[in-house]
Amino acid sequence: MGKNVIVLDDLSGGFKENVNPKATFIKGSILDDKLINSIFESRQIRFVFHLAAYAAEGLSHFIKKFNCENNLIGSINLINAAVNHNVECFVFTSSLAVYGNNKCPMSEDMIPLPVDSYGIAKLAVEQELKISQDLFGLNYIIFRPHNVYGEKQNIGDRYRNVIGIFMNQIMNGEPLTIFGDGEQTRAFSYIKDVAPVIANSIFIKGIYNQIFNVGSDNHNTINEVAKEVSEAMGVGHRVKHLGEREEEKHAYCSHKKINEVLKFKAKYTLSEGIKIMAEWAKKQGPRKSKKFKNIEIRKNLPSVWLE
Amino acid sequence: MGKNVIVLDDLSGGFKENVNPKATFIKGSILDDKLINSIFESRQIRFVFHLAAYAAEGLSHFIKKFNCENNLIGSINLINAAVNHNVECFVFTSSLAVYGNNKCPMSEDMIPLPVDSYGIAKLAVEQELKISQDLFGLNYIIFRPHNVYGEKQNIGDRYRNVIGIFMNQIMNGEPLTIFGDGEQTRAFSYIKDVAPVIANSIFIKGIYNQIFNVGSDNHNTINEVAKEVSEAMGVGHRVKHLGEREEEKHAYCSHKKINEVLKFKAKYTLSEGIKIMAEWAKKQGPRKSKKFKNIEIRKNLPSVWLE
Repeated sequence: MGKNVIVLDDLSGGFKENVNPKATFIKGSILDDKLINSIFESRQIRFVFHLAAYAAEGLSHFIKKFNCENNLIGSINLINAAVNHNVECFVFTSSLAVYGNNKCPMSEDMIPLPVDSYGIAKLAVEQELKISQDLFGLNYIIFRPHNVYGEKQNIGDRYRNVIGIFMNQIMNGEPLTIFGDGEQTRAFSYIKDVAPVIANSIFIKGIYNQIFNVGSDNHNTINEVAKEVSEAMGVGHRVKHLGEREEEKHAYCSHKKINEVLKFKAKYTLSEGIKIMAEWAKKQGPRKSKKFKNIEIRKNLPSVWLE
Repeated sequence: MGKNVIVLDDLSGGFKENVNPKATFIKGSILDDKLINSIFESRQIRFVFHLAAYAAEGLSHFIKKFNCENNLIGSINLINAAVNHNVECFVFTSSLAVYGNNKCPMSEDMIPLPVDSYGIAKLAVEQELKISQDLFGLNYIIFRPHNVYGEKQNIGDRYRNVIGIFMNQIMNGEPLTIFGDGEQTRAFSYIKDVAPVIANSIFIKGIYNQIFNVGSDNHNTINEVAKEVSEAMGVGHRVKHLGEREEEKHAYCSHKKINEVLKFKAKYTLSEGIKIMAEWAKKQGPRKSKKFKNIEIRKNLPSVWLE
């Protein structure tokens, strides 16, 4: 698009080889406010796409402090810099998690009622952006994606992104682990449906200071996903059910607003997306799954996360 | 009440001589999670009264990171410790600030819509308590006090507690500074009305896991407060109006719920409370007002705070 792009990432959940070589890559964290300020001071940054987060919703109850630092304090560092350096638009990827206890399909006019620490932090960032627009004139666009999957995702993270977890388990010869009966539903969104919308958003001034759900219209049960992934990976269906965990039974949202305003419609079906990702996963092979080290609360932690 | 009390305070906004000598005093911050854990490990703590905060609502826009660390991360440290050490009840002083854009009088059944960083952080703590009750069984009581004033308050803080600020200005021979026309209204609550309700709450199990407004029913304009304080301090009425700042024009709440459930009714009128506090202030003399050092955003900062 003719823009100079700077990528800031601490590589805690990503890989340098995924960064487009035409972009300037800086290894560092959004928690490092000195680094953030030096980046903004030495360059004329016009737009911020803030996608950095530790998006492990279920785990967030047990790592409240880490969650708040990563997802809220880190965001505040970026908002402060954006205000101080007159950024033209701040694009923030929030989450379906802010809706929490609302009824499905969730829509942007609902009042958020988050039920986990991840959703609480994401909502607080949304609120900080709103008041920064009111007081400082900082423009923002908030996207609420949900269950995004696709090639280049970190399939070695055992706490988030069930499709990647399943593929890694299959390649490690393990059964697919499912919390509860597997009848919980989510709308899985393929990366190539979601990423272009976010990238293009800054050019559409009419959508500044608005919130949009973005992702797939179709929701599926975790059991269905397990079957699709097994088929795409070319293995038999082998599942291990674990105890239920604290989570919303059903979580999917309406895309009426983004459909009307941006003519957005997700193109990839779940089968299509999973097939493409599975081909990539088989080529890339399994990743070692690391344990999260600094669990803050162990009470009621799902036992699979203690192993 | 026959309880052993431990007081933890970093003395950033308070004074050691205000601590009851029968309590064990520990100088330290709620941000120091090692200290917090060592306190909870070495003692059997049954109840937590969490009143620590930097409650400078207007300034919070400009110190978003400091605000979030102090008011949210600090609270999370305490919630984590309370969950891990099976505390029986966690009493949290939230704020009227969580209501934000709601209509006056604000009541507990309204959905919070905070409009400043202080209110955002307080609301996030409330939400963390709610989900910690759901998942970990931690009992809480949330109070939403507002504009509390009285003896022993830090009148040297130029960013919060207008009654104290006025008294300090008078003793320093300065005019009383008012943002805007002074017709904004607040319900000023005398400390001896509010503190006993909070202290006694842990004995009433029927109010666990509920939220209560607590404070005065009567609201006054800042102009009225300026007159009352000048009279009580025995000086002429001398006021300096500054530019308006970003704040709610009217903010006061209903006490119907606490009145019905706890038969609470504030006893002190504004004149009575101010008179008692003024006598104390005259004895104690003015305090030097310190400037907040690490302002994060200077854009649109009220110029009186830059001086």
